[in-house]
Amino acid sequence: MNIPHASAIAVLGAGSWGTTFAKVAADAGASRGTDVRVWARRADAAEEINTTHRNTRYLGDIALPANLRASDDAAVVLAGAQLVVLAVPAQTLRAQLREFKHLVPKDAVILSLMKGLEVGTDARMSQVIAEELDWPQERIAVLSGPNLAMEIAREEPTASVVACSDLATAGWIASACTAPYFRPYTNTDVTGTEIGGIVKNVIALAVGICEGKQMGDNTKASVMTRGLAETTRLAVALGGKTETLFGLSGMGDLIATCSSSLSRNHTAGRLLAQGLSLDEVTEAMQQTAEGIKSAQAVLDRAQQLGVYMPITENVVAVLQGTISVDELGPRLLARELKAEGVHAP
Amino acid sequence: MNIPHASAIAVLGAGSWGTTFAKVAADAGASRGTDVRVWARRADAAEEINTTHRNTRYLGDIALPANLRASDDAAVVLAGAQLVVLAVPAQTLRAQLREFKHLVPKDAVILSLMKGLEVGTDARMSQVIAEELDWPQERIAVLSGPNLAMEIAREEPTASVVACSDLATAGWIASACTAPYFRPYTNTDVTGTEIGGIVKNVIALAVGICEGKQMGDNTKASVMTRGLAETTRLAVALGGKTETLFGLSGMGDLIATCSSSLSRNHTAGRLLAQGLSLDEVTEAMQQTAEGIKSAQAVLDRAQQLGVYMPITENVVAVLQGTISVDELGPRLLARELKAEGVHAP
Repeated sequence: MNIPHASAIAVLGAGSWGTTFAKVAADAGASRGTDVRVWARRADAAEEINTTHRNTRYLGDIALPANLRASDDAAVVLAGAQLVVLAVPAQTLRAQLREFKHLVPKDAVILSLMKGLEVGTDARMSQVIAEELDWPQERIAVLSGPNLAMEIAREEPTASVVACSDLATAGWIASACTAPYFRPYTNTDVTGTEIGGIVKNVIALAVGICEGKQMGDNTKASVMTRGLAETTRLAVALGGKTETLFGLSGMGDLIATCSSSLSRNHTAGRLLAQGLSLDEVTEAMQQTAEGIKSAQAVLDRAQQLGVYMPITENVVAVLQGTISVDELGPRLLARELKAEGVHAP
Repeated sequence: MNIPHASAIAVLGAGSWGTTFAKVAADAGASRGTDVRVWARRADAAEEINTTHRNTRYLGDIALPANLRASDDAAVVLAGAQLVVLAVPAQTLRAQLREFKHLVPKDAVILSLMKGLEVGTDARMSQVIAEELDWPQERIAVLSGPNLAMEIAREEPTASVVACSDLATAGWIASACTAPYFRPYTNTDVTGTEIGGIVKNVIALAVGICEGKQMGDNTKASVMTRGLAETTRLAVALGGKTETLFGLSGMGDLIATCSSSLSRNHTAGRLLAQGLSLDEVTEAMQQTAEGIKSAQAVLDRAQQLGVYMPITENVVAVLQGTISVDELGPRLLARELKAEGVHAP
């Protein structure tokens, strides 16, 4: 697309990732006068961003740029936006879109930062967007990668991936969010990029449980490797590409999530391993561990397609209480001696 | 091969990995009366193994099984061995094989545990074995995977890969070293399996340097992801298979090595980042960081084949003193905005 840079960007959702991405976009567009507006559900959160340039609940004392403003009024945030960025909890997206649909400018590009499958429909976020907004594929994109929000908020160098069926749209978005510390690459595989971001949360739960049970780096590396293999099988069955899963938005995101103490899903796994119940984990964490919500939907999708996903299956069994956290580790490693293959069960 | 289990196994090299593998094989064969003999260069090391069932220099107070014996006499160790396991430093392999060639039983299967390219010839270990022993491919195998020796010595659950052009030979070896805590898979891609094990040491140096420079998990995950992509390009150019690199011996080994404080190459990178010279690092570590020796050979091979390996190239520049450790991080992330692809530069 031979169009000018985005001059108005709306970010719906003022959690850690939404706010951090808004900061990136504001920093990226500061010299061009780009206006970035964040919608916060809570008026006091919007007020804090506007008065102190902080979002202390999610980002501590990180200073937000002057060209980033917030409001709890979606109409104000969305008015005239050329790029609309969605960063609300995955399970609330459909309801939010129904509420805001009439406010979204008709020629806007929509970018999803969300990682989850909708419980009940098993739909990816880009599918929910297409359905609810009745939007064309070439103006729906997703962003995913090894992107721990707190590290980006601290301006530590990070790469990411913008995927859109139209590569020019992906490039336009990438330009809008290229900051000195944030470098987005582009591809056209929306499905593969989304699936990588969704299933890694489930694998991170498994790795967190292994860690909580004091298993070593050999075991954790094996679980990540086999986890990516089962993620790839699902992505390919849905029309995604293998190479996407072995790129930054697949392998990169999985490693970052499973390595970091900053990751919610990884932390949730460790808490489960320590014997906390699912309710206690949710209570203790304050933030959403999306893997807990999406795991069942991932497994449903896999079973519909006949895709073998043993790690996901066992994580779901733990979440449902069918097996204990002590049984998970041995089950993940228990397979007959056989030839190894990414594509074979 | 429809032949009975190995009853005599020789392991040449009593370092941490050689001794640990000998323990695995001895535990695997204990109920079948398998005899495992280790060759130690130093007589006192052999004596310690035989009298106290310890190798304190490398494995602390780990107890070694009763059916594992040691000697500094290679003739004693190799006599009647059906499986000969090589675990000497990569750069000394050729000289050792010339010395021991006449002692190796003519119908033995040779298994390499070594991870390195020979400086000067850029040959893989399996190639050095084939040349020096004049041995057939179907009786040369390699073992590689997410295999931090100390974790295996502590009997923490671990998976691995045995590769041999003859899958039956690979299966026979896998049977000989399947212990309750050690599970080997098999494949026929010797080249891909070796290249994964070699280049991961170079990538681990890069990740160690990033860590020493306080870079975050987003950056490290990106370096690992791109590191595996460049490893895969080299492996494929040499005739290996992409799927091998995305299995346990590629991705799995890379993640384990880059995650663990037990990894020598990772540690070497952190020491370099702290400002130690190459000589000081080698001095401080006592053990070989194979990546330091192999990096130049990997780059030579890549350049002969026209394979783009930017991370390896920059690690070599650091090791040669052409660029400083401070310049490495920015260089690893400095690429123009472009579409991402595993196979493209």
